[in-house]
Amino acid sequence: MERFDGRSAWELRPVKITKDYLAYAEGSVLIEMGNTKVICTASIEDRVPPFLKGTGSGWITAEYSMLPRSTQIRKPRESSRGKVEGRTQEIQRLIGRALRSVIQLEALGEKTIWIDCDVIQADGGTRTASITGSFVALVEAIYKLYETQQIKTFPINSFVSAVSVGIVEGMPVLDLCYEEDSKAKVDMNIIMTDKKEFVELQGTGEEAPFSREELLKLLELGERGNEALIEKQKAAIGQAAELIGSQGRNLHKEGGNHEE
Amino acid sequence: MERFDGRSAWELRPVKITKDYLAYAEGSVLIEMGNTKVICTASIEDRVPPFLKGTGSGWITAEYSMLPRSTQIRKPRESSRGKVEGRTQEIQRLIGRALRSVIQLEALGEKTIWIDCDVIQADGGTRTASITGSFVALVEAIYKLYETQQIKTFPINSFVSAVSVGIVEGMPVLDLCYEEDSKAKVDMNIIMTDKKEFVELQGTGEEAPFSREELLKLLELGERGNEALIEKQKAAIGQAAELIGSQGRNLHKEGGNHEE
Amino acid sequence: MERFDGRSAWELRPVKITKDYLAYAEGSVLIEMGNTKVICTASIEDRVPPFLKGTGSGWITAEYSMLPRSTQIRKPRESSRGKVEGRTQEIQRLIGRALRSVIQLEALGEKTIWIDCDVIQADGGTRTASITGSFVALVEAIYKLYETQQIKTFPINSFVSAVSVGIVEGMPVLDLCYEEDSKAKVDMNIIMTDKKEFVELQGTGEEAPFSREELLKLLELGERGNEALIEKQKAAIGQAAELIGSQGRNLHKEGGNHEE
Amino acid sequence: MERFDGRSAWELRPVKITKDYLAYAEGSVLIEMGNTKVICTASIEDRVPPFLKGTGSGWITAEYSMLPRSTQIRKPRESSRGKVEGRTQEIQRLIGRALRSVIQLEALGEKTIWIDCDVIQADGGTRTASITGSFVALVEAIYKLYETQQIKTFPINSFVSAVSVGIVEGMPVLDLCYEEDSKAKVDMNIIMTDKKEFVELQGTGEEAPFSREELLKLLELGERGNEALIEKQKAAIGQAAELIGSQGRNLHKEGGNHEE
Amino acid sequence: MERFDGRSAWELRPVKITKDYLAYAEGSVLIEMGNTKVICTASIEDRVPPFLKGTGSGWITAEYSMLPRSTQIRKPRESSRGKVEGRTQEIQRLIGRALRSVIQLEALGEKTIWIDCDVIQADGGTRTASITGSFVALVEAIYKLYETQQIKTFPINSFVSAVSVGIVEGMPVLDLCYEEDSKAKVDMNIIMTDKKEFVELQGTGEEAPFSREELLKLLELGERGNEALIEKQKAAIGQAAELIGSQGRNLHKEGGNHEE
Amino acid sequence: MERFDGRSAWELRPVKITKDYLAYAEGSVLIEMGNTKVICTASIEDRVPPFLKGTGSGWITAEYSMLPRSTQIRKPRESSRGKVEGRTQEIQRLIGRALRSVIQLEALGEKTIWIDCDVIQADGGTRTASITGSFVALVEAIYKLYETQQIKTFPINSFVSAVSVGIVEGMPVLDLCYEEDSKAKVDMNIIMTDKKEFVELQGTGEEAPFSREELLKLLELGERGNEALIEKQKAAIGQAAELIGSQGRNLHKEGGNHEE
Repeated sequence: MERFDGRSAWELRPVKITKDYLAYAEGSVLIEMGNTKVICTASIEDRVPPFLKGTGSGWITAEYSMLPRSTQIRKPRESSRGKVEGRTQEIQRLIGRALRSVIQLEALGEKTIWIDCDVIQADGGTRTASITGSFVALVEAIYKLYETQQIKTFPINSFVSAVSVGIVEGMPVLDLCYEEDSKAKVDMNIIMTDKKEFVELQGTGEEAPFSREELLKLLELGERGNEALIEKQKAAIGQAAELIGSQGRNLHKEGGNHEE
Repeated sequence: MERFDGRSAWELRPVKITKDYLAYAEGSVLIEMGNTKVICTASIEDRVPPFLKGTGSGWITAEYSMLPRSTQIRKPRESSRGKVEGRTQEIQRLIGRALRSVIQLEALGEKTIWIDCDVIQADGGTRTASITGSFVALVEAIYKLYETQQIKTFPINSFVSAVSVGIVEGMPVLDLCYEEDSKAKVDMNIIMTDKKEFVELQGTGEEAPFSREELLKLLELGERGNEALIEKQKAAIGQAAELIGSQGRNLHKEGGNHEE
Repeated sequence: MERFDGRSAWELRPVKITKDYLAYAEGSVLIEMGNTKVICTASIEDRVPPFLKGTGSGWITAEYSMLPRSTQIRKPRESSRGKVEGRTQEIQRLIGRALRSVIQLEALGEKTIWIDCDVIQADGGTRTASITGSFVALVEAIYKLYETQQIKTFPINSFVSAVSVGIVEGMPVLDLCYEEDSKAKVDMNIIMTDKKEFVELQGTGEEAPFSREELLKLLELGERGNEALIEKQKAAIGQAAELIGSQGRNLHKEGGNHEE
Repeated sequence: MERFDGRSAWELRPVKITKDYLAYAEGSVLIEMGNTKVICTASIEDRVPPFLKGTGSGWITAEYSMLPRSTQIRKPRESSRGKVEGRTQEIQRLIGRALRSVIQLEALGEKTIWIDCDVIQADGGTRTASITGSFVALVEAIYKLYETQQIKTFPINSFVSAVSVGIVEGMPVLDLCYEEDSKAKVDMNIIMTDKKEFVELQGTGEEAPFSREELLKLLELGERGNEALIEKQKAAIGQAAELIGSQGRNLHKEGGNHEE
Repeated sequence: MERFDGRSAWELRPVKITKDYLAYAEGSVLIEMGNTKVICTASIEDRVPPFLKGTGSGWITAEYSMLPRSTQIRKPRESSRGKVEGRTQEIQRLIGRALRSVIQLEALGEKTIWIDCDVIQADGGTRTASITGSFVALVEAIYKLYETQQIKTFPINSFVSAVSVGIVEGMPVLDLCYEEDSKAKVDMNIIMTDKKEFVELQGTGEEAPFSREELLKLLELGERGNEALIEKQKAAIGQAAELIGSQGRNLHKEGGNHEE
Repeated sequence: MERFDGRSAWELRPVKITKDYLAYAEGSVLIEMGNTKVICTASIEDRVPPFLKGTGSGWITAEYSMLPRSTQIRKPRESSRGKVEGRTQEIQRLIGRALRSVIQLEALGEKTIWIDCDVIQADGGTRTASITGSFVALVEAIYKLYETQQIKTFPINSFVSAVSVGIVEGMPVLDLCYEEDSKAKVDMNIIMTDKKEFVELQGTGEEAPFSREELLKLLELGERGNEALIEKQKAAIGQAAELIGSQGRNLHKEGGNHEE
């Protein structure tokens, strides 16, 4: 059985990650998954929220927004409406948690890294694309800190990426576009590391509850999708990729007879 | 290995569901899970949000709030701060989705049922207790509509309940109290029906990613906990319980030669 | 002439004050006056508003809220509407003034006591019940400070309680329930100490102005009602009651030949 | 014993009421009580709030504001702070109730009269001056409706005015200026009709509770003050004054052999 | 061709500037231009916004508001609506820029001068009247600082005033009243110094674009109007006027043989 | 004398207008002026604001926002701060007026065209780039209405574009980048049509007033810049360009021997 756009069930849409997309941010990426396009930036600020002051630890926080006409019908601006929707807050919190899960915040020092995800065009899966793209922007920003020796160890432990899966017309499928998403009976976002561990799992069967068997099939698709996405992240990141999980030993050899 | 409060890993805290807790609401319940206490009410309003006007279908929406001193440290009131936190919105949306998943909204007619969950005392698991308690309040409110023949079929398809599970000090455990929750490496909320299907699954390993094996153990605990909770719901609901999933055939036999 | 619910004109509804109602607050009370039920808590915070910083004096401030379904018709949540109504602010200010009038704030040291009044069920007189109940919660919280010698003198000078009176169908009556309140031509809240002094008086004849004679009758009823309420407070407070107005001489005798 | 500014205890500050103060409002007044100056306008709008739609009855609502530099220290604008203070709301509600108490709203038809009180200079007693001044603006606006036969009966039953009284350095005094107000132990606002009835009474002894004897002395001063203020209102209003309480019989004799 | 109100094209409406209009502000002015009336105050505060802290420099900021019934149709209060309109913000920013353009902020020291413009009656040209009037209030406030030697040099370099010009029924005219403004095809506000330099120019041809020739005619009218307004300012300011642009040499001769 | 980036005084930065930049909007453009990049979209909605209901006329309204990291220092999101800054509102109003000035709103029918300008990267001149780019998006959207015969006449009368000019280090220059803008003593935005008429002129000499001679030089630069920009617009628009000002005669020849 074929999908709406000709993909097989376990196939991602075409993925493209463009690094250094904007001029001023410490890290910036345009991620495209099919027609979904998100600009992700990472900005470094030399202070932390009140609850971390004096702890020596850093923080990562995320904001998410959609351009009003990223969608098929214009969506009123949250700034004009004077408040941030529940959906937006949910997504922002999700992105923040996902990125914080793979970083040693105490190794950052008292810095905040602001992640901004601005959806330019929305065709389903904007929150998972935001996580996948932001990770690359985050690595880029942190690499600058590391290169300039503002931090001693490279504080990122793992890659992290995210993808949606769902059951559409009875078939478990990977990476739903908007058309599929609006017909899905079950919808799940799966965030994973390069060690095939789960960072977060959010599955909803509002339209119809799902069985344990269906869940297992969805997890398998998610694992497959994230594996492919992490390959794309590696390619985009380039040489800094090998620092991830290494604590940065390779780059800052501290003089002497370093043989390793 | 024993837990903080002497429970075994698969043991719920003492659960108590008091129906008809308040005088005016169509449905009202006090649910207690250990020291966690939530007042849940269901209020019927004879109109629907704009997107449903004219469709003949009803709606269920939920609001959640904590009394400022339900917690160990006083929490500023959201009304005084002028905005609803992201966490609150996330929980409200979750409760609403959970309840909508087991009801035939089109059988309600153009009515909104407002679910209000007000946490009187918080010792972990307030969002899952809110779902479990609200379901009972919802059934009570709908039963009144049904008894007075304002609706023809009994529109609730399944029971729905929710429980938290998590990995605390390496051990997967059921129904975390606040003390455990704050030490948990993995934290998951599991919402299920009486048919052992999943309605929603939200698992976070912010502190540490988790493996598929750990996930499976957590799902098992969640299944066990929800089974026990649904028994409590049945006891609280009383005679209306048998209407759930039956489309209300038993109550409104329309006299005569009913042969079916 | 008999009242709606069979009471005589000078009769209070059944009053019940349950101390230690919640687990975490320094002081917490459930007060019931007939069907009106309010949870009152007192929370101690170790800082004061800016205008008191460095003065050595403390502060008492109050917040008031109604559960959405405490009323016959569901009332939208102020947090969802994003602003606190004028009525709520008026009540909050009234509760705060009433409690501050009987306490020596400078003897508290630089602490704020937050009073939270959350109406669980509303059948008239919620603001006066809030004052009467909060006073008990306040004493409980302050007694803890005193027992643990965080304050030297017991800073409460008098009891304070409040009751509503009004003219309903031509008859001056005490402690109006909602049904009466909505028919009252004159409505007055009377806040008094155990020395029969007035702390605050708020009388409104929006529907019909009232004469001085009517006013005097209402004051008499109010005096009677407050006398009875203060008896209830004493019973609930227990041994700490005798410290009120005594500056705490009995408990902390400062050694030596104390003969009194 | 003499007061701060040489007045005797029962003496008002110089009162001046300037009618037709602004060009566009249906009614507009500048009221001066000593250094306190308030612009009061009455604006007629041809619709009513939702709760009155279709009832045939009208409404009166009031808004109150202080110019930022009406006070000795500049007070931030409520529009800039994005919210209306509790004090402001309390005053607005008070003004509205006072004016509604002397008018037959059902005789207005479905019109709203907006009362705006803008304090130009504040030296104590701004809320009572607002009520006294607004009444004159209201009469002016209603007289225009009556003259042009947009309403049949003259719907104002009584005069209404307001004055503050208080206990300052042990002495009960009338019409407190700011200097006195800030030293007063008891502070009361008294709103009365020309029939010497009370419309509203708000007395606060936050600094020190007060006895029944003190209350009676304050009421006497208030009565005296309001009597004098109503004389000032009569002079300002001119010929329309005789319509008040008369139902407007004099003006609109409906032709023929009117003998009465 | 004559204008609506009989003026010639280059004629201002009657201008009246009343200094010391309010009792408490450091500077206060009532400016009347025909039926347009604005109260302008200048208030001195001993601190600066964060971006100036520690720089030794001062700041001038302006707020603008209209009384609800300054206009022909009542305009809802911005404080009640909970937000400040775009138009208001535009005007506030314009007034602030205009006044800052003629003052040496660094000579003020770390003080903020708050300018408040409250429109009592609006008949067109309220923003330009606000600027012209505020300048006088500003000089008054600064003169007090100077007289009391809180500042050493008199920091105002030039007079500044503002006037509107426009093309109404094909004719370029000066100082439009509301009636003309609503018919104007082109509308321009011109802010100038006493040296005939432009401080700000805002011209809009929303209804119809305008040519360079029309622009030049409008500039000429604006120059003429501002010249006349600055004469009025000089008369209102009195002796302090000669300090403007002089750096205050006359008043604070620093002893010795000052010959200049 | 040469400019910061090597341009001559009358030289624009490289301009690039990419049409059809996004998939869903009726009109969408990426405009780049040097490093300044703005996404402009035009969205058609089939209703009008209340003040136009029933008039048969349409409306154009604009919103403007900057991505948080479009700037050198991250700028907090207006949605998170809960309010739209004065600067933003000023720009939104400016864009709206500029576009409305060249269109026959009554020929649109009761439609609103929403213009959204989202700044992706900011290097000075974002408001003028927004106007120039939005015009192209607007034409694209309107052309779709025209092609599908939803409107009968082509309602755009003129091209409109905008550019900034200023005096930097004594030299009048065209199209300031951020570096220049922050040093400019005079700063002016000039909006013009292809008929060399002015639509809007906003010049500010906050740092230093400017003379009439300087003004004339700036106008000349602005004229030159807009002429060049309109050429770029023509190229981007393609065939629809010839409809502008023609009332659409060419496209919808209504059959027969149309010779003109």
